[in-house]
Amino acid sequence: MTPEQRRLLIELCGMMAYAELSAFERMSSDARFSPTLHDRATLGRLAVAEFAHFETVSDYLAQLGADVEVAMVPFQASVDAFHDRTRPADWYESLMKAYVIDAMSGDLFAVLGQSVDSALQDLIGRVQVPPELAGLLQGRLREVLAGDARLSSRLALWGRRLVGEALTQGQRLGRERSFLGALMSSAPEAEPLEPDKLRAHLTRAHSRRMNELGLTA
Amino acid sequence: MTPEQRRLLIELCGMMAYAELSAFERMSSDARFSPTLHDRATLGRLAVAEFAHFETVSDYLAQLGADVEVAMVPFQASVDAFHDRTRPADWYESLMKAYVIDAMSGDLFAVLGQSVDSALQDLIGRVQVPPELAGLLQGRLREVLAGDARLSSRLALWGRRLVGEALTQGQRLGRERSFLGALMSSAPEAEPLEPDKLRAHLTRAHSRRMNELGLTA
Repeated sequence: MTPEQRRLLIELCGMMAYAELSAFERMSSDARFSPTLHDRATLGRLAVAEFAHFETVSDYLAQLGADVEVAMVPFQASVDAFHDRTRPADWYESLMKAYVIDAMSGDLFAVLGQSVDSALQDLIGRVQVPPELAGLLQGRLREVLAGDARLSSRLALWGRRLVGEALTQGQRLGRERSFLGALMSSAPEAEPLEPDKLRAHLTRAHSRRMNELGLTA
Repeated sequence: MTPEQRRLLIELCGMMAYAELSAFERMSSDARFSPTLHDRATLGRLAVAEFAHFETVSDYLAQLGADVEVAMVPFQASVDAFHDRTRPADWYESLMKAYVIDAMSGDLFAVLGQSVDSALQDLIGRVQVPPELAGLLQGRLREVLAGDARLSSRLALWGRRLVGEALTQGQRLGRERSFLGALMSSAPEAEPLEPDKLRAHLTRAHSRRMNELGLTA
């Protein structure tokens, strides 16, 4: 690994680590507003999975000889700003936020990971939301949406707002920090990833997930 | 196990489960206000340990053929009231709350567990805060208190308030729910546990822990 590759990796992992730690905190605080104790436990379980991912990424940073706290600092402001701008108004919006944002971050990390080394790809595989939890989340959303046209339209709108904010934040980050661009242009395959293509890829995957809920993205 | 013993066990476990689930949610929300990213991760780790305990107790309830949500419901109001009355004003108070209340609940469960069966004693052993985490918490508190007379006096006062509220809440619960008294009087040893003795036992253990921080209880 060249020193430059190592630097890029540390930046990417710093971002992932802070995103996971924040997701853990937000999700577990939101859990308290769940309509049933069963839902509280489910959201808690999801939050705990995020924390486990944070620890996985921290271990990887330690292997790279990097300090996890130092690596996270550059991303604190923008991740916090994202969460402040997308504060769920109730438990349904929390659930949708978990559904939309976890999956989208996973997609983004998967794309960025392609361009770097295989240990990173393995790491990224390990920090995806486990399918059984993702399935549980989707199942619960379907249940609450079923036959509730008002909630469906509110959550469809909320989903669009979440994705809009996430893409805006990603764009800002891309401008401010060189590593996203560098990772994308270091793709080993012939064609480097272009920002527009990445955006289209993420949006498509999001639309598919919204459709799976019976909503229009 | 007699049906009456089983009923008592389910009540005790329902209380433990809800206490753990709430502690998880409160602690992980409080983590966000930590002064450093390192502290956020530490408080997060403690919160995750609480969630693991919640799952351990849930499994035990399932083995007893009881539904964890149903078992928790009777304790929701009083545990929530306790947390509402002891809302930490800042991160230092959160840390102290975790230190005081986790240990005290552990002490209480250990005493109540003596009176029932050995499987329960084993369970109670498994839901104690792991010594390395308790040590970490104590270490961090010592650090922040060292040489800060103002914070020390504020947190000493806060510690007294926490214990006062916890004991009051315990007393109320004892009046409202028969199981605490029943558990205490079913102690296998010659002498049933008396409320006054239990209170003295819990207070003593609390004072010792405060002294370990260099504070007066």
